[in-house]
Amino acid sequence: MDAFELDGRLARDSELLASLSLSDLRLQKDSRFPWLVLVPRVNGMSEVFDLTLADREILHHEILRVAEALKALTGATKINIGALGNIVRQLHVHIIARFEDDAAWPGPVWGFGQASTYDEEKKQEFISRLLKALAP
Amino acid sequence: MDAFELDGRLARDSELLASLSLSDLRLQKDSRFPWLVLVPRVNGMSEVFDLTLADREILHHEILRVAEALKALTGATKINIGALGNIVRQLHVHIIARFEDDAAWPGPVWGFGQASTYDEEKKQEFISRLLKALAP
Repeated sequence: MDAFELDGRLARDSELLASLSLSDLRLQKDSRFPWLVLVPRVNGMSEVFDLTLADREILHHEILRVAEALKALTGATKINIGALGNIVRQLHVHIIARFEDDAAWPGPVWGFGQASTYDEEKKQEFISRLLKALAP
Repeated sequence: MDAFELDGRLARDSELLASLSLSDLRLQKDSRFPWLVLVPRVNGMSEVFDLTLADREILHHEILRVAEALKALTGATKINIGALGNIVRQLHVHIIARFEDDAAWPGPVWGFGQASTYDEEKKQEFISRLLKALAP
């Protein structure tokens, strides 16, 4: 199997937090929203239904597991889950914690304004709590 | 079990096309995009992970089935799948066929501009082709 190649924009806009069984779990570099991205480690796929049946099931479980942990961790008003890919064609799924006082509420976060840089300490604390919440 | 109650805004903004095993399949009343909405017939849930494990699996399969049919039918550049619910809290999943020349490309459709009314004949033709594509 060819080595997994991550799209350049995904690489630039997010950072790797953990490797789940199918997907890399990444944090979007935007402190305005607790915003995670799952990127299945398969090359050349853009739609969820491009995956094998087995991989669809795994991705489904990874999405739900991450979404539920993110909700529990943040107490978000609503979790937004989206597979868009209009700009970055490599298959990836966004999982975002939304709050009634966040910058884009109640609109979608994609394409909204400019990303805001994380305070390093706050970011590390969030990552640490997230990984704990995701631990089996 | 209590009768299923559809959110008023979902009822107003979309029309029922078919009842799948768990979800109602609805067409968004917006001719700018081939835009479908799946609404699981369960009351009082807003997140995908609020569903029972069995219902999560069924919804997952319904999303993939509809997304794949919509892609085949429209030849869309990209299918967008989203569960947001910031405005309408009742659990629902959007499945939208996107094209590089559509009104909102490459941005998301949610909250973008004003819905456009369907030409009745074109709408009926689309519905008829979609239901055929979805037939077992």
